[in-house]
Parts: sequence; structure tokens; C-alpha cells
Amino acid sequence: MIQITLPDNSVREFEEAVNGYDIARSISNQLAKAVLSISVNGEVWDLSRKIENDSSIKLHTWNDSEGQETFWHSSAHVLAEAIEFYYPGTKFGIGPTVDTGFYYDIDLPADKIISEKDLQKVEQKMLELARQKNEIIRSEISKADAIALFTEKNDELKQELISELEDGTITLYSQGNFTDLCRGPHLPNTSYIKAIKLTAIAGAYWRGDEKNKMLTRIYGVTFPKQKMLEEYLVMIEEAKKRDHRKIGKEMQLFGFSEAVGQGLPLWLPKGTQLRMQLEDFLKKVQKKYGYEQVMTPHIGDVKLYKTSGHYEKYGKDSFQPITTPSEGEEYLLKPMNCPHHCEIYKMWPRSYKDLPVRMAEFGTVYRYEQSGELHGLTRVRSFTQDDAHIFCRPDQLKEEFIKVIDIIFIIFKALSFENYTAQISLRDPNKPEKYIGSVENWDKAEQAIIEACKEKGLNTVTELGEAAFYGPKLDFMIKDAIGRSWQLGTIQVDYNLPERFELEYIGADDNRHRPVMIHRAPFGSMERFVAVLIEHTAGKFPLWLTPEQAVILPISEKYNDYAKKVSDFLNICDIRTVVDNRNEKIGRKIRDNELKRIPYLLIVGEKEAETESVSVRRQGEGDKGTMTNSEFVDFITKEVRDQLSGLYN
Amino acid sequence: MIQITLPDNSVREFEEAVNGYDIARSISNQLAKAVLSISVNGEVWDLSRKIENDSSIKLHTWNDSEGQETFWHSSAHVLAEAIEFYYPGTKFGIGPTVDTGFYYDIDLPADKIISEKDLQKVEQKMLELARQKNEIIRSEISKADAIALFTEKNDELKQELISELEDGTITLYSQGNFTDLCRGPHLPNTSYIKAIKLTAIAGAYWRGDEKNKMLTRIYGVTFPKQKMLEEYLVMIEEAKKRDHRKIGKEMQLFGFSEAVGQGLPLWLPKGTQLRMQLEDFLKKVQKKYGYEQVMTPHIGDVKLYKTSGHYEKYGKDSFQPITTPSEGEEYLLKPMNCPHHCEIYKMWPRSYKDLPVRMAEFGTVYRYEQSGELHGLTRVRSFTQDDAHIFCRPDQLKEEFIKVIDIIFIIFKALSFENYTAQISLRDPNKPEKYIGSVENWDKAEQAIIEACKEKGLNTVTELGEAAFYGPKLDFMIKDAIGRSWQLGTIQVDYNLPERFELEYIGADDNRHRPVMIHRAPFGSMERFVAVLIEHTAGKFPLWLTPEQAVILPISEKYNDYAKKVSDFLNICDIRTVVDNRNEKIGRKIRDNELKRIPYLLIVGEKEAETESVSVRRQGEGDKGTMTNSEFVDFITKEVRDQLSGLYN
Repeated sequence: MIQITLPDNSVREFEEAVNGYDIARSISNQLAKAVLSISVNGEVWDLSRKIENDSSIKLHTWNDSEGQETFWHSSAHVLAEAIEFYYPGTKFGIGPTVDTGFYYDIDLPADKIISEKDLQKVEQKMLELARQKNEIIRSEISKADAIALFTEKNDELKQELISELEDGTITLYSQGNFTDLCRGPHLPNTSYIKAIKLTAIAGAYWRGDEKNKMLTRIYGVTFPKQKMLEEYLVMIEEAKKRDHRKIGKEMQLFGFSEAVGQGLPLWLPKGTQLRMQLEDFLKKVQKKYGYEQVMTPHIGDVKLYKTSGHYEKYGKDSFQPITTPSEGEEYLLKPMNCPHHCEIYKMWPRSYKDLPVRMAEFGTVYRYEQSGELHGLTRVRSFTQDDAHIFCRPDQLKEEFIKVIDIIFIIFKALSFENYTAQISLRDPNKPEKYIGSVENWDKAEQAIIEACKEKGLNTVTELGEAAFYGPKLDFMIKDAIGRSWQLGTIQVDYNLPERFELEYIGADDNRHRPVMIHRAPFGSMERFVAVLIEHTAGKFPLWLTPEQAVILPISEKYNDYAKKVSDFLNICDIRTVVDNRNEKIGRKIRDNELKRIPYLLIVGEKEAETESVSVRRQGEGDKGTMTNSEFVDFITKEVRDQLSGLYN
Repeated sequence: MIQITLPDNSVREFEEAVNGYDIARSISNQLAKAVLSISVNGEVWDLSRKIENDSSIKLHTWNDSEGQETFWHSSAHVLAEAIEFYYPGTKFGIGPTVDTGFYYDIDLPADKIISEKDLQKVEQKMLELARQKNEIIRSEISKADAIALFTEKNDELKQELISELEDGTITLYSQGNFTDLCRGPHLPNTSYIKAIKLTAIAGAYWRGDEKNKMLTRIYGVTFPKQKMLEEYLVMIEEAKKRDHRKIGKEMQLFGFSEAVGQGLPLWLPKGTQLRMQLEDFLKKVQKKYGYEQVMTPHIGDVKLYKTSGHYEKYGKDSFQPITTPSEGEEYLLKPMNCPHHCEIYKMWPRSYKDLPVRMAEFGTVYRYEQSGELHGLTRVRSFTQDDAHIFCRPDQLKEEFIKVIDIIFIIFKALSFENYTAQISLRDPNKPEKYIGSVENWDKAEQAIIEACKEKGLNTVTELGEAAFYGPKLDFMIKDAIGRSWQLGTIQVDYNLPERFELEYIGADDNRHRPVMIHRAPFGSMERFVAVLIEHTAGKFPLWLTPEQAVILPISEKYNDYAKKVSDFLNICDIRTVVDNRNEKIGRKIRDNELKRIPYLLIVGEKEAETESVSVRRQGEGDKGTMTNSEFVDFITKEVRDQLSGLYN
């Protein structure tokens, strides 16, 4: 008798060894159709692999990441089989899954080349192989046999990979005429794969090392339904249009200069206006919640990061230390603001009555990334965190956590992110050596997060083993307007830095106690957040936030003076206004400025000049009628106020 | 016949060679009494030195720096004479003047020591020597004779100095029984020195090199009137009380942490509040004047600074380059923001119609200073410039210069700096090799500065040879409340960086032209400016600026809740308010909070709680009567508005 425990803790009993597919079918036929792989005691297995002992299991479908990974992993094997069909003698490197889809790195025979135009025929062959419903079969093999097999195939890439594996752990997977070295898991057979798109072809060094041979990397994505592929392709098209790098350039929000350096964004005037608006908004919200702003330098003595532990963890892979011409000092560009804030905490003695201390800084930090990893504003080498550290008593932890969640909700509301979830990242209880700090402290911190989320009614998933090395955390994920997920704000409990920096407060008992620290950054970083915001809104930012709220369009040069007068008036009333006084036809001016994503177009001519008024158009909505200048100020001010109403004083 | 041209270009004729004293006497007896030295064709001479040829001269009194330097230089010789009297066998290093006074570095005989308590007897001896009215006599001497003289005196310090001089240029000065190697100039005799104070004694390495012997440095200051010394000592006492390091600590404005690093200020919550208030103020003023804010990273590729010329000029003495773990890149902490701004200028093509481009940034820069040079916020290793760069057409230069002067006037007015002068720093026309850029461009730039100052009616002095290597500039000097001078804002013309960065605009003629750049920073840096402001105001900042505008003092704990309610209301009305809810007597609370320099003390008890009011005290002024909470908001808001009225929208 085998007992199988399901995620809801219910138990099913089976007479003999059973596989994932059997378990799914015992629940429902529909589930049996949808299931792709199974987690057995935390490890993902093939559906067809027999479970011999009592186990806890979870079934994976297309709706979870493990299911998609299994699907795309098998798709990579089908890609390899199709390649081998058209290009016999090809050597196969690795074929992992990526965020969406998979790739395979291949080494074609010396007389063969493959290009974009060949991908369609490979896709066709893949579809043909998928429809054959070839079973995907797992087999265990000795190291000697594995090497023999790939020596026979002349595939020295696989031989190299095998040579690094331990004997007794090596598995192969075969489908149709193709056999691959693989840890698995895989789909039961190829027929699950209904829709296939090979998306790109590129060069890639074997094992990512530029000293090695350049291989050919083929990217692809597959789906269990044709319709899903079609929707995906539409989404990709839309994502291209919304690419923050493209819109950022069009709207002159930010830029990069090779002379300054890779991954070091320059905030242009309009981007700076946007960013300051966001920062001021958060400052106001944070002031309401009792935060105090501080400012600290962008470097710190190496010893500071030895105290904090950051040097040991990141030192070698960071920007290297800065030495001084004499005196033998060493400084690091700061990778985090927390050590500086701990030093401020220590500036004078703190009493239990002074806590919580909520210390906020828009702190620019520097972290080295390889140039190949850099991407627009989402992966940069300098970024500004909307950072804060809350130093509180242990009994204040949950309440502070709840207040931070409140702030994040205010931000999501102000920016119309309606679709969000949160991930609670806890330690891996089986790997205590990965974490700094006592088990007792970890227990307390994890409990505080779980309870705070519960009280706020947050939609959460819990991930074991995803905590940072210094504490558990809560991450917020938002879905943008075209359905993509982005990780944004983080709230992190930390019992470790207060220990390392020997932070203290005097308790009501007159004894010294250690405070708890919360790290939190609702936006994450200004760079990444603005990138997400651009892609979410396609550059049509909310009125309160957008760098230019109104543009005045004189219908001819005769009215340029009046346009300037209106613009001065609106700017004094804190409405960010520009004038388009080019010598162009009014139709052309309207079209151009609609493209610039400015919400209000104010057309002025003789009638308007005579009556001190403007003719109002809303971007994408058309004519709103004529208003006096004062009426327009009231109108737009009310719209801004309504957007932010109730969010802060 | 010798023609002597005075500074007002009038000419006096003398029958034969004449000295400075004679010239002064030929003008007035009063001037003859006051004159201390004379500039002859730009070189400062002894009053007694004969002028043999036609010359342009300027007479120096106590009212100019050359006069004071002569005075203090002679005083250093009198100090040395007194030391030699009490400590025969002492060897004498150098004895220069400093900002206020002079010092002498001496090497006492091995069996002698000198300490604070010995200074009084040395002062007495100096006074005695001064009263002897000993003539100070200049003599020229050959190098061989000079070495012989100081070999006889066993003074190897002077021998070392002489060995580096060129034969034919060596002069000695003698008074009483003392002879010193000296370039001069000096007073005619010692009796000008009426009041003497030796202010400090310290150790100093010979020639500032820690590998050399440690000498004893004695600091002193002297005056032509006893009353001046007394006033000076009072000022020094007052300056100690106003020391920004002391007040900064008391008011918790800023701090330093050894763990973070020397000279790297941490802005504490109240200091950050103050700084943000200043920054917001300047942002508003600058917005009115058409500036656009940008934000750039704190590092730049070394190549960027090679392009700008900063690397060649400062590289070796700066924080050393930051390397990356791979890829062999090199970055520098930015010592200036201008290269980054030039890169932004180049982001897209500029037309003559787009100029001026006024690009502003509160940019934190990093410059290495030796640890011994660091001093509070006035000499630091990281500081934030209120920087802006104006890129304009040559024909716009003067107008832009005038607008910058306007902004500086607004700031001085908002902060009650009523006493200021400006220094125009031009190139030294005799040393063209010191400067980058064409003579024609320098001429244009210098003319624009001179004319702008004239049009604004500025009180200026012009200094030849004080220009930066890349352009002429205008510096503002303010006098603080206790009479000390501080250099603040700078406006600098630059034809050089536009060349080096190949900046361009398309002119009305459709050809490419080079813009002119103006660097300007009205505050100079936030750090230095706040230091000056603290010492000017003794921490009693203007109401609009001060971090805490009002404190609420409940007369007993019973009224803490009402105090909190009033505080919430005032904070919502943007009045920065705190509560002192300590369990202390109201008298004690009033005293403590007066010391904290909070402008308004609001006392609340039963009567106030019943009538929703506060009993108002103004710091240093006492009782202002009872006001309802709303009346107080109107009252204080009006005071703030009046302080800033008309300065910006």
C-alpha cells in the first residue's frame, strides 16, 4: 500500500507503485489531460516514472512554471531531433528552458550553415515529429556507457558534459530516433506540443566562455494550443511597440552614452521631471507614514562592507576597490545603502520610545553587470533605490510590515496597477547552512510576514528556499497591460545586519536590546520602475505624473505671443506646459503632438486670444470644447486631484 | 625726473629716485602713517626701497591684503627674534603669513622644549622688541655668502632653502639682533606692531613631508592697534560658538562615521530636511529662469575625463580608477558634472533656436583631499554641487551671465546675506601657456563678464592670473554676521569643453557652430553652503528654511493627545512641527526648546485644548499671545510668504 499526500494534505492510497499520470486520472479525466509533470517530495519527475514509496506530490500543468518548463524542455529535444534530421553530424551542447520557451546550442558540421530562412522547415519537421506521438523514454546509464555512446556519435560537447557528472546519476531520454543526455523531467510523449515557433538564431560561446568555440543558438517557443501561440505572437508584437528603450528615446526620457559608460543611464530633462514627480509623490506618502529622509555618500570604506558581509559575498564580482593616492585607504562604490543607514542609527543612543526609526533615501547604488547582461533601464550598473530601513522593536515588526504593504497599495493605486500578487520567500528548511542568523529569529520573522499578508488579505504564493541569505522577504509581482509579469517592490526582514553592526536600543527595562531591521523599496529602483511603467502605459503616463501635461498649439504664428502668455500662466499654476510654435499647419501640429503622448492639446487662435481661453483636446479622445484659461486650470487640477485623491494629504 | 603713475592713472613727478614712503607723504601725512608696503609694476616692495625708474605703483595699507601680509611677515621675524633670545641655537624653517596672521616653523635645541605656557613670555619679548622701533633692513647677498652665514649659525634648514635658490636673487632682512633669509617685503621698522597674540603651538613636518623631522610651529597674529586685537579675540570666541561642526552635532544636522570614511558627510534627517528645502527653493527659482533638471551617474569612463582634460590635470591626485572584474574597463568617481552634461547635450542635434540649453543637476562629486586637510563640511571628499551648465550662442553670453547674477541675488536676499562683493578672475596676460583656448575666445569671455557686472552695478575687484585654466570666472564673496569673508557661488565661462567634446549647433546660416558653456553654482556646494549658513546664523535659520518650525509643549502629560492633534494639523498644513511630550516641567521644556533654535514654541494646556488654540512664543522674543490653530497657521504661513515674497512664483 502506497500513501500519496496531495498539496491540500489529503491522502490517497494505491495498491502498488503508481505514476503521476495514474494519480491525475484517479482525480479527474480533465486533470489527466492537463497534467505535464509531477513534484515528488519536492523534486520534479516525469509523469510516467513510478513512485515506489509513500510521498508528498504536486501535479503540474501549463498553469505553473514547473509544467511549462517540462513542456519546453521536451520541445528542445524535438528541436534537436529535427536538426539532426536535416543536419546529420551536428553536435549538441545544452538545451535549457528560458523565461518563455527554450534554446539549443548546436555545433553544425563544418560544411553546413543554418540561417533565419531555414527555421521554417525545421519548425515543420518539429510539428511532424510532435504529431508522431513519440513516447519520451527515460533510462539510467553508467558513465562509461554514456561516454561510449557519445564517442560513437562523435559528440565531444556531450562527452565533456558527461565527464563532469558522477557515475550512478546519469540519465538519457529518447524519443523517435533521437537520444539525449538529460536530467529530465519530460512530457510522456511529443503529441502534447501543438504549436511551434522558432523565434531567433544567434551565436553563443560554448559554456558562455569567449575562449571556447562559437556555437549556433536557436531560440524557440511552443504551446499546447495553436491559439496560445497566436496570442503570444500578438503580445510580442505589442511588447516591441512598448519597448521602454524605444519609447524612452522617442520621448527623450533617458539615454546612454558610450563615453560615460555602459549601463550608466543619463536621465534627460523629461525623464528627470518624471522621476522627480515619482520621488516627490513617494516622499509625501512616506512623510505621512513617519519616514525621515537622509542622504549618504556613494562610496564607503571597504571595512564597512566587511562588517556588513557584503564584501565577502559580492566583493570579487563587483566594481573593484577605489584606492587613494596616499594613506592606503580603500573604498567601494556602495552596492547597498543599508550599511550607511546603520551608521546613522548608531550616531546617538536610541530608546525604545524612539522606535520605529524609519530612514529613507533615494540612494544610488552601483553593481557590476557583464556588458552582455545589460538591458535598457531594467538591467543597469547604476540605479537609484527608493530605499528605506525601518529599525523597530521585535513587537513592532508585524505592524510595520502592514504599514509598508499599505504604502505599496497606495503606489499601485496611483499608477493603476490593478493586477498584482505577492510572493513570500522563506528559507529552505533543509539547508540551514545557506542562511545567516538564528533559527529562532528566522521563525519570528517568517511568522510576522505570513500574518501581515493574511491581515491585509493579500493574494500570496509561498516559496521555500527563495529567501535572501540574511532574511525572509515579500516580493510584489504586477501584471502589466499586456499580461506580462514584473517583479517590483520588496519588503525584507533582517535580523542579521543589526547583529553585525551591533545596533542597540535601551528598553523599558533599562537594558540593551537589538532592534529588527526591515529593508523595503516599493518601486524597487527608479530605473526599473520607470521601465515597467513605460511598457505598462506605452508611455501614456497618468496625468499627475507625465512630464508634459499640456501643449499649446497656436493656429498660426500670429498667435505665438498669446500661446506664450497662456503657457506662462499655466506653468505658474503648476501645470507643466509647453508651446509648439513651429511654422506648421494646425492639423500637422495636432498629429505630431498626439504622437508625443501629451495628454492635453490646447489650440489657440483669434477667438481664444480675444476671450482669454483655449480650445481643449484630450489625447485619444478628441474635442472637449472651449474653456477660459482659469476654467482649464480648474478642470485639469481637478483631474490630477481625483487621480491622487485620498492617497496622501 | 621720475614719473610715478598712481592707480587712478594720475601721474606724479619726482626729481630723483623716490621710495614708497616719500610718495605717500607727498599725498598726505595721514596716508604716510597708514602705508605699509607698495606695489611697483605689480611687485610688492618695501616702503623704503628706492624706485629708480618711471613706474606704476599702488600703496598698501592695513585695508588691503598686501598690506596685512607685509605686516604679518615682519611680525614673524619679530617672533623669530624673540625665540632666538630665549632659545639660542634654534634653527629656523619657514615663517609665512596665513589667512589671519602668520606662523614660524622652528627646530629647538635638543635640550629645550616650548609649550603653551611659554607663549606669554615670548609675546612680551616680541612687544618689547617691537617698541624698540628697530629698522628692518634689506640687503642683497651672494649665494656663497648666504650659505656661509647660515653654516656659521649651524642652521641646516636655511642652508637647504638657500641651496635651492638662484645666485643673484638672494636677499636678507635684519632687525635688531636678528637676520633672516627672506624675499620680503617688510615694514620700515618694528614699531608698527602694537598688539600681539601667539595663538597656538603645534607640530609640523619640515616642508610638510612626513619623512622629514618634526618641527615646532608657532602661530600668531598681530595688529596695528590694541583695540583691533581685542575685537579679533571676541570674534574668534564668537566663531567658536558658531562652529558649524559643533552646531551641526547639537542640532543633529550632519555627522561623520569612521566606518563609512573620512570626509564623507552623512546628512541626518534634520540636515536632509534643511538641504531639501534649499534644493527645492533653488529648483523653483531655476525653473522660472528656464533651467531643466537632469540626473547623471557618479562615475564615468576614464576616457571621458581624458576627453575633458580632467584626467591629465587631476588623475594622479584623485581617487584612483575603479576597474571591473572582467572586460578591462576603468571608471573614475566623477570630480565634476560637466562631462556628463556635455554628453547629454550631444544626445540629439541642437538648433540655434533651441539655445540656450540650461541643464541643472544637484550632482554629488568626489575629490580626494588628504585627511589632514578635511574640516567639517567646508573641506570634504564628497560634496553636492548645485551645478548647472548653460550652453548658449556667443551672442547670448552676456545676457545669460546677467541672469545667473540675478539668481545669485535672489539667493542672497532669501538668506539675508546683505554684505557681498564679487571677484572677476581674469587670465595672467604674461603667462599664456597656463591657459587652454584661443586668445580671441578669452578676450570675448572676459569682456562679457566685465560688462555683465557693470550692468548689474556689482561691487567687484578684478584679479589678473586668478582665472581657472579653462576660462575666466566671477566669484561671489559674502561677509557673515561676525565679519568673516566666505567665497560662495562661482560663474565661469568656458570655451574649452565645447571644443574638447566637439559640441555643435546648427546656426540660422545652416552651418555648424560651437556653443559657449557657462558653469555656475550659486551655493557652490550644499555642504559648504550649509556650513556657512550655520556659522552666519548660529543655527537660527530663516523660518522658511529651518528644519523644525514649531514645537508643541503640553503643560502636562494630560495634554499630550491634544498636542498630537495640533501637530498633525500643522504638519498637514505644511508647517514642520514636533511635540515635546517629555514628562518635564513647562519651564524646563521652554528652556530646552529655546536652545534647540526652534522658532515657535506653542504651549498647550486646558484652556488651549478647550478653544482649539495654542499659546505662542517666538524664540528669543517671548510671548505672542494665544491664537486659534487656524490663526496660527495663517500667521506663520504669512511670515514664510513674506520672507520669500517676490523671489519666485
